[in-house]
Amino acid sequence: MSQDTDLLWLVKETQFDSQKLGKYESILALGNGYMGIRSATEEHYVGEKRDTFVNGTFDQFDDTEVTELPNVPDVFRLRLWVGGYPLDLNTGQLSHYQRTLNLQTGELTREFRWEIGEYALQFASSRFISFADRHVLGTKIVITNLGKKPLPIVFESGIDGQQTNSGSQHFSDGEKRLYKGKTLQYVTETNQSHILVSITANQDFSVGDHSTIEQTRTLMPRRQLLREYTVSLSPSEDLVFEKNAAIYSSRDNDVVYPDQNSLQQAGLKRADELVRDGYVSNLHQSAEAWRKKVWGKMPITIDSNDFMDQLSLNFARYHLHVMTPAHDARMNIGAKGLTGEGYKGHTFWDTELFILPYFIFNYPDIARKLVTYRYHGLAGARRKAAENGYRGAQYPWESSWIEDGESTPIWGPADIITGTPMKIWSGFIEQHITSDVAYGINEYLNATQDNLFGRTYGYEVIFDTARFWTSRMNRSENRQQYDINDVIGPDEYKEHVNNNAFTNYMAYWNMQLAQKLIARLKNEKPEIYRQFDQKMNLQQLAIDLADCLAHLYLPQPNAEQIIPQDDTYLSKKVIDLTPFRNAGKVDEIFDHYNLSQINDMQITKQADVILLLYLFEKSFSSETKRANWDYYEPKTTHDSSLSRLTHSIFAADLGLQDEAWRFYEQARQIDLGNNTNSSNDGVHAAALAGIWNMVIFGFGGIRYLDGTLRITPNLPRKWRSLDFRIWWHQQQLHIHETHDRLEIENLTQTHPVKFTCRENEYELSDRLVISMD
Amino acid sequence: MSQDTDLLWLVKETQFDSQKLGKYESILALGNGYMGIRSATEEHYVGEKRDTFVNGTFDQFDDTEVTELPNVPDVFRLRLWVGGYPLDLNTGQLSHYQRTLNLQTGELTREFRWEIGEYALQFASSRFISFADRHVLGTKIVITNLGKKPLPIVFESGIDGQQTNSGSQHFSDGEKRLYKGKTLQYVTETNQSHILVSITANQDFSVGDHSTIEQTRTLMPRRQLLREYTVSLSPSEDLVFEKNAAIYSSRDNDVVYPDQNSLQQAGLKRADELVRDGYVSNLHQSAEAWRKKVWGKMPITIDSNDFMDQLSLNFARYHLHVMTPAHDARMNIGAKGLTGEGYKGHTFWDTELFILPYFIFNYPDIARKLVTYRYHGLAGARRKAAENGYRGAQYPWESSWIEDGESTPIWGPADIITGTPMKIWSGFIEQHITSDVAYGINEYLNATQDNLFGRTYGYEVIFDTARFWTSRMNRSENRQQYDINDVIGPDEYKEHVNNNAFTNYMAYWNMQLAQKLIARLKNEKPEIYRQFDQKMNLQQLAIDLADCLAHLYLPQPNAEQIIPQDDTYLSKKVIDLTPFRNAGKVDEIFDHYNLSQINDMQITKQADVILLLYLFEKSFSSETKRANWDYYEPKTTHDSSLSRLTHSIFAADLGLQDEAWRFYEQARQIDLGNNTNSSNDGVHAAALAGIWNMVIFGFGGIRYLDGTLRITPNLPRKWRSLDFRIWWHQQQLHIHETHDRLEIENLTQTHPVKFTCRENEYELSDRLVISMD
Repeated sequence: MSQDTDLLWLVKETQFDSQKLGKYESILALGNGYMGIRSATEEHYVGEKRDTFVNGTFDQFDDTEVTELPNVPDVFRLRLWVGGYPLDLNTGQLSHYQRTLNLQTGELTREFRWEIGEYALQFASSRFISFADRHVLGTKIVITNLGKKPLPIVFESGIDGQQTNSGSQHFSDGEKRLYKGKTLQYVTETNQSHILVSITANQDFSVGDHSTIEQTRTLMPRRQLLREYTVSLSPSEDLVFEKNAAIYSSRDNDVVYPDQNSLQQAGLKRADELVRDGYVSNLHQSAEAWRKKVWGKMPITIDSNDFMDQLSLNFARYHLHVMTPAHDARMNIGAKGLTGEGYKGHTFWDTELFILPYFIFNYPDIARKLVTYRYHGLAGARRKAAENGYRGAQYPWESSWIEDGESTPIWGPADIITGTPMKIWSGFIEQHITSDVAYGINEYLNATQDNLFGRTYGYEVIFDTARFWTSRMNRSENRQQYDINDVIGPDEYKEHVNNNAFTNYMAYWNMQLAQKLIARLKNEKPEIYRQFDQKMNLQQLAIDLADCLAHLYLPQPNAEQIIPQDDTYLSKKVIDLTPFRNAGKVDEIFDHYNLSQINDMQITKQADVILLLYLFEKSFSSETKRANWDYYEPKTTHDSSLSRLTHSIFAADLGLQDEAWRFYEQARQIDLGNNTNSSNDGVHAAALAGIWNMVIFGFGGIRYLDGTLRITPNLPRKWRSLDFRIWWHQQQLHIHETHDRLEIENLTQTHPVKFTCRENEYELSDRLVISMD
Repeated sequence: MSQDTDLLWLVKETQFDSQKLGKYESILALGNGYMGIRSATEEHYVGEKRDTFVNGTFDQFDDTEVTELPNVPDVFRLRLWVGGYPLDLNTGQLSHYQRTLNLQTGELTREFRWEIGEYALQFASSRFISFADRHVLGTKIVITNLGKKPLPIVFESGIDGQQTNSGSQHFSDGEKRLYKGKTLQYVTETNQSHILVSITANQDFSVGDHSTIEQTRTLMPRRQLLREYTVSLSPSEDLVFEKNAAIYSSRDNDVVYPDQNSLQQAGLKRADELVRDGYVSNLHQSAEAWRKKVWGKMPITIDSNDFMDQLSLNFARYHLHVMTPAHDARMNIGAKGLTGEGYKGHTFWDTELFILPYFIFNYPDIARKLVTYRYHGLAGARRKAAENGYRGAQYPWESSWIEDGESTPIWGPADIITGTPMKIWSGFIEQHITSDVAYGINEYLNATQDNLFGRTYGYEVIFDTARFWTSRMNRSENRQQYDINDVIGPDEYKEHVNNNAFTNYMAYWNMQLAQKLIARLKNEKPEIYRQFDQKMNLQQLAIDLADCLAHLYLPQPNAEQIIPQDDTYLSKKVIDLTPFRNAGKVDEIFDHYNLSQINDMQITKQADVILLLYLFEKSFSSETKRANWDYYEPKTTHDSSLSRLTHSIFAADLGLQDEAWRFYEQARQIDLGNNTNSSNDGVHAAALAGIWNMVIFGFGGIRYLDGTLRITPNLPRKWRSLDFRIWWHQQQLHIHETHDRLEIENLTQTHPVKFTCRENEYELSDRLVISMD
């Protein structure tokens, strides 16, 4: 790999700092959508979080907590003593420290030299979670004696089930076995959901010819299964430790009859194969899978002088694949991916509005899994609607396992003063999630024309989400206007508002989508229409939709072109956020005002009206858009990682190049920047997807609106070109943008593709070059 | 306190070593029988165990585990940053380090100077658990800026509910409240036993006149309630932190209606009072209570040149009071006291055979609580007998909460090779515990003549334990001899043996005790006899006892005077243990042989036949005792902390002064010695009591046999005198022993006391001096 390529693919920690454990554990995390492991260092430090998650294995600790992804036993744990000194990089002399995540191969390496007392050693480790076989992970550690005397080492590795979710333990003390003196197996079960997890790890330990392994012991402390190797390492010689491991769970969809025995057998079989192939080969297969499945399939190249432009995009894409369960539609993407305990592994609207586009355009097969998850969630959504006295399907604000329904905590911590628990309202009234789900499905259908998905899964969701809204209208006395009262919009500072513009427009759009779909099926596919009508009473739905669409209040721009965020927002007090924004510490506003006070001010957490204008760009004039940008952006704290990405794209749409770039630069720093704490609980899934969105939608100018593809490049001045591919209507398009040309080629060529560029319509059969001068 | 007194009362850690955390956490632990807290350092280290236990709050994590004392939230936690550097004594420059447990006052202090970067500070902390009010604990921390520049400090303290029992979490994420900006309260509940625990802590934080508190924040991470103080400390100035806290639980017997509200109110009220009185006064009250309740009440003085003789005795007595629930007969003493997770807080025969004597002779009111616990355990013991097809009461090998019955784990870890879980046989067949319980009750009755206890509690236990044995006999075909087959004796290396001598003699003694009691009651207290007979059918019991006593096989000395440990022991292979014993590593024998091989050898874990000869000294000749000593001791690994103390006393009885001294010196090192790991899971309750036993029984020559007090001093040559008091027949006796005199004074003088000395009988009314020449 050349120096240049290095810059674009390697994320490095060049200095060890035990105050930044959390950040690097998250951003250097490994995974493959099936499992994710925070990249804690091999040795332990105070404040570390070693989380290992297996996607979908949700468990509820007790009835005061909600279900969450539990922390499964740790495989990468190492305790090491050198001449009696424990390996602790805060002690002794540390030099040549470097930890590197190679985004291209998924390999994490770590190197350093360490001197303690009279001893000196070189430490080199490598680890990966396989992208070729989702059950597989491995690590290799080489320690070299740099001193002139034999180096006495005690090396302890194994499987550690003492991990918890910040103190909540979901697993039983497992069954522990040792096979052939080298293969450790730990089988454990979640307490409430009774999911079995088996972890099988083969450990191979060897030393150079002049060194001796003095003792090898098996240790079985509570919840741990460990092997301890006592060694005297001769000068210049190495010890080499290889660990090849496999994890299976009874939620796996590739294990037939996933009982304890078959999970154990699968682990043993796989461990044997892994040992036969060896660490290097296993790692190579994984790297090849990254190349074949991700990088080689859909390359994206930014030609610019700043390596961060490409690196942050690669970083985002790496994490998008690490967090996404491409293998199983019964689970989805957590708001922190599989990299931390934040948001408990739950899925939010982040998937549909911010992450799904990446997969729709790049890996439509994965996108299909993500939208199918929402079909599987219909039962829970219908249950939620019924429980709240509504019809149709009301989607949970937070989702977990497909069957679990609403997973948002009902009660937050008690108000610290009054002792009254604070109700978390999102699960009750942040209801736009229901239209967001329909929005995601429609985007998928539009982009892929996967009508089979529509008939089998998608339409049912569209009908029942729309039906929910018909039952959700607040009808005024004279029935002239229907309102949607008592909601939370994207601006979560405002609880219990009426007619949040974003919510109302999304509900309207959702109902309209169903109305059009009914009409289309009736006309074009009468047999399918008949089937759905029988099952879901489309006739009645059509009547209700017509009524609601005729009456639902859609907030209109006022005299100053401002769309009121909700019924009362514009009448609230305006305060100047400049001091907080300039200090870069908008969250400090809560040191000055409490939530109730902020509720009474024109302060917005994140893109709300702006998001509406972005999603429905054709419905509003340029003048309205600009006026609302000028009005709302200064009132926005961007206190959600979803905010800046929308602002960047919207600014690019408005031709505000500098603002677009500024928000892009800030947004891509959310995980990769210098803020040491912001990623402690995990990376920000939607914000990472946002990097791709900003590059392709914002600067690349790609958009799909009402089934139409639009390509209107807004390349930043600093970029020479942007080269990428997208899937559209089952054609793979290769797009090359420069400041003066748009080149577009249909690589699939099974049928021509229509698109617009700067208001012009084009039809692409093989290749087109459009001048951008 | 003079230098000399210091030596006798202070246990010190003079060097910080993060490899010895466990040892000092245990031996410096604080407590008052109601609660116990391991003395983890304020700041966190990898490998620490911060256990806080509230006695009796047993909970079962899941049905694969047994009930255990759960780890309640931690109050002593501190995170401290100095100029951005976390307090970590493995970094920077540490000097003047000292941590001191004052056994006399129960105060733990810690001092050090620490330099990091450009900063230097003095740290001084003090903490205690109140011996005056069992719910109370407190700490005070003073940090002084030793540098010439302001010292930026971030200081974070509060209540931390992330603690687990090595990964098993017993408590819910608690309710958290802050009162008046200073009092933190955390209320939580065990998952299975539904015991509420409230922890209320008032935190007062102040700085010198020229320093400033820049910010004070409340933090509520999961399972934590913390206050963070950001300070700039001027040169030479102090920050002073005082924390006064109170813990209540719904198992408390001094809280009426212990529901959540009353536990909260009790905590708040107590915290207010503690703040009003202040840390120094609260500590003083606790120290006074130690003086009044323990040290001043029953002083023991060894006059010798080696301070360790007195210090180790004081250390043992300190821990005996820290571990013993003198306040509540529904709980007992754990094998590791309240100082660690070892043995899960469970009670064994350790209480009756090794710990009870200390309390019987010194604090008979506490001894009464300990034996009453066994009366409360009758229901569980009867259940166990019935479940196993026996009559009467079969006591659990391990006990926990009074109602829980047998608490021994049934299954140990799976055999690591075969995967078959290993059955833990002690709970099934280590049956001598049942006679041990009766033995303890009888000792208490003999020494105290507390007949009310006998009538109310004790006799019932004696009858039903004896009845158990009548149903436990293995009757041979011709009914000429009854055996007790398939047991484990004190030598736990031998599972499933027949006629373990200790077990058989103890069973015989237990039945004989009941027989004599029946006869005595019948003759002397016919009304009481009638009541018991009605309730417990003593007539039938008497018939069964006569039959069993007539036929039970009691192994007799063979031609070489050796009493066979069991039916097959003497026919097993003999191996030479000398190499292992000389290396001081008898546990390494398991690296050479597995349990099944050791089962087939004449290797004994701990005093077994020797314990029998010690307990029933009148039943065996001196010749037999000496022969068995010579035979068994060399075959004993002393791989139980109960073994050496018995050997020391027995050697003293035999006149083997050097051996008695050697075992005493070894036995008192079990917790206080240099072995860094042996106390990691907690101190050794019975071994600590053994220090008192060796001093008073072994060297002091005190013994009570069949209701008779014997005083036959065996003072070690190195001691000039031994001065102590004992309670006997409700008289407090002051005994002063030198090499040539025995002085004995009756301090109570309500009635004269009989005793024997060197085969002579004496009657003591006020004072006697006996020449020992």
